[in-house]
Amino acid sequence: MAVGKDYFPEMHPVPGFKLGTTSAGIKRPGRNDLVVMEAVVGSTVAGVFTKNAFCAAPVQLTKAHMAVAESRYFVTNTGNANAGTGERGRVDAKTVCDAVAEIAGVTTDAILPFSTGVIGEPLPVKIITAALPAAYAALSESGWDDAATGILTTDTRPKGASVQLKLEGQTVTITGIAKGSGMIKPNMATMLSYVATDVVVEPILLEQLVSSAVDASFNRITVDGDTSTNDCSMLVATGTSGVEFTGLSDTEQSLFTEHLNQLFLSLAQQIVKDGEGATKFVAVEVSGGKNSEESLAVAYTVAESPLVKTALFASDPNWGRILAAIGRADINDLDVDKVRVYLDEVLIADNGARAVSYLEEDGQAVMNQETLSIRIMLNRGDVMETVWTTDLSHDYVKINAEYRT
Amino acid sequence: MAVGKDYFPEMHPVPGFKLGTTSAGIKRPGRNDLVVMEAVVGSTVAGVFTKNAFCAAPVQLTKAHMAVAESRYFVTNTGNANAGTGERGRVDAKTVCDAVAEIAGVTTDAILPFSTGVIGEPLPVKIITAALPAAYAALSESGWDDAATGILTTDTRPKGASVQLKLEGQTVTITGIAKGSGMIKPNMATMLSYVATDVVVEPILLEQLVSSAVDASFNRITVDGDTSTNDCSMLVATGTSGVEFTGLSDTEQSLFTEHLNQLFLSLAQQIVKDGEGATKFVAVEVSGGKNSEESLAVAYTVAESPLVKTALFASDPNWGRILAAIGRADINDLDVDKVRVYLDEVLIADNGARAVSYLEEDGQAVMNQETLSIRIMLNRGDVMETVWTTDLSHDYVKINAEYRT
Repeated sequence: MAVGKDYFPEMHPVPGFKLGTTSAGIKRPGRNDLVVMEAVVGSTVAGVFTKNAFCAAPVQLTKAHMAVAESRYFVTNTGNANAGTGERGRVDAKTVCDAVAEIAGVTTDAILPFSTGVIGEPLPVKIITAALPAAYAALSESGWDDAATGILTTDTRPKGASVQLKLEGQTVTITGIAKGSGMIKPNMATMLSYVATDVVVEPILLEQLVSSAVDASFNRITVDGDTSTNDCSMLVATGTSGVEFTGLSDTEQSLFTEHLNQLFLSLAQQIVKDGEGATKFVAVEVSGGKNSEESLAVAYTVAESPLVKTALFASDPNWGRILAAIGRADINDLDVDKVRVYLDEVLIADNGARAVSYLEEDGQAVMNQETLSIRIMLNRGDVMETVWTTDLSHDYVKINAEYRT
Repeated sequence: MAVGKDYFPEMHPVPGFKLGTTSAGIKRPGRNDLVVMEAVVGSTVAGVFTKNAFCAAPVQLTKAHMAVAESRYFVTNTGNANAGTGERGRVDAKTVCDAVAEIAGVTTDAILPFSTGVIGEPLPVKIITAALPAAYAALSESGWDDAATGILTTDTRPKGASVQLKLEGQTVTITGIAKGSGMIKPNMATMLSYVATDVVVEPILLEQLVSSAVDASFNRITVDGDTSTNDCSMLVATGTSGVEFTGLSDTEQSLFTEHLNQLFLSLAQQIVKDGEGATKFVAVEVSGGKNSEESLAVAYTVAESPLVKTALFASDPNWGRILAAIGRADINDLDVDKVRVYLDEVLIADNGARAVSYLEEDGQAVMNQETLSIRIMLNRGDVMETVWTTDLSHDYVKINAEYRT
């Protein structure tokens, strides 16, 4: 199940960035499950990684390699997360990097490994290395579509976004793909994303850009900072356009940043819409907070509440559950009589109770929609934050009770 | 659904404490839904209340009344929570108190009101006040069994515990009842509990006793401090035994405290076992923490993880999901290689991976049980904490998608 139409955009190639996909047969024969990506010499690379203490072997190695060398190749396998595999997992991840390095004629530390899939099982290294030449041979700047399917696990759809804009009169491109199938990290749902641009961005700046972009996108669909053992979000700047980010006017820098953030947000929202068992796509928008922390605290508490989520699944405009969730978000001295709650444009609660003007049929009409917003006004400050979530359905339980991670 | 056998113990009366139950017909005719309790003059009363900012009208009034007068009567209705009812809710709660006060010949501030049930609907004051004389007439020291059923909402069983012990050679009694039907506060699940003893305990001490007892019981089954708008846990000391807590030896004070805490824990565990859709009763025991906070953080993260809970429902010994939950509990510098995870006595994971000695059939055998423990050793300190939880089943979604709070 997934919310909204299955839509995959036109993916503009990013000069200097190639992708090659193949089927190694890791879990199912014939399924795309191995992707190699190549960044041209001189590219800069930055990433945001899982904060989970049980950080998977490939993530450890990716971080180690990024610290010591220029990153040139990304190798991603699905079907096996190489997580919870201890020391053997680290050796296996390195063996895969060695194999890519040999084919590509670079050093091992130029390779960044990524894995997603079943955890706790040894990585099928031989199956992967045997298929690497085919993936490498497939490298092409137009390889985005295949790669978008090649990184999926329980996702029901590929996720991609691509945009072109003019900077200094020249067309530059940002294109990216993502995988992940849920809000509350079902199936250890690794979130992986790879975004590339041909703008020139120096490493420190690129880190800041990917940090802010992730913070406003993937971190707004993540419950409680609930990252899986394998989550990685990568940003590559090939620089092939020759347009330098630091040389841009403030206006053009903002323009680029906004497009980049929007692209990350689009990928993140595609993940929520494809959430396991999802039947609804819901924006929880909290305004009037004193600061970002408290607006987010309220938004997360509502978005994560199993009671709110089951009510969403039932299309039940249950304002009482929303109020109760707001009330337990642990905001200091919250004046509940000032809080107003809307479903889209329908005021459902104020003064600590159901709104006098509220008609059940109006709330029901909004709840019947596939996409809706829960809008909460705290009226104690001017900070607004939004978190995106989905409902909690029978299918969520079914999928996660039956799937063996 | 509920875990384990339906068992209700023999309830020893507490001299000086009477309970009277009747059917007012608030939601369903013939169902016990109104309970009055009377504490003899000179009793002390203490309570722990919801921290939810949207604290229901009766809770506000109970706290206000306790602050200004000796509490003599408790009036509890089910079928309507009088929550999310704003100013009108406060007026309605006071009207009920007025009615009890008139019948009992005391002042209104001697009455403590409690409500549980549907939220956002006006309290049916007339229906309640009409039935008050019958509840009052039923007051009896042997009224515990009826009261235990009279305070229920979606619970499938009454919950009670009772113990007698000798202090200074004299028999004293502790008896209590509770209601609530879930771990994650389904249906706005109000948790209510009323415990009485005939020991003499001065007010400040009684507050400390109920605080610690709740902290080690109801607060160990509550997700994230996730209290509903109506939660209250009351402790009454009638003093009729003449045994004074402050006059006891250290040993006898400890003996009493331990029995009191154990009784609260029993009530709390009965709530978990009767959790909505529950098919399993699970203790998450975290030892070797540096302090209570971190042991609890790990225990809560595991106990609340939807992935762990759906695996429990599926009887799937999914050690990977447990490791991932531990890893995201945000413990500073957690050395994952030192963490050991057991299902009961079966070591399932160590050194950041599946234990070498682990056999799937051993883990499966534990998972097939209705009652089991997930035991996590952090090996970085000596503090142990336990949290009790249940699984996440199809029925949980069904109940909460269909029930309109």
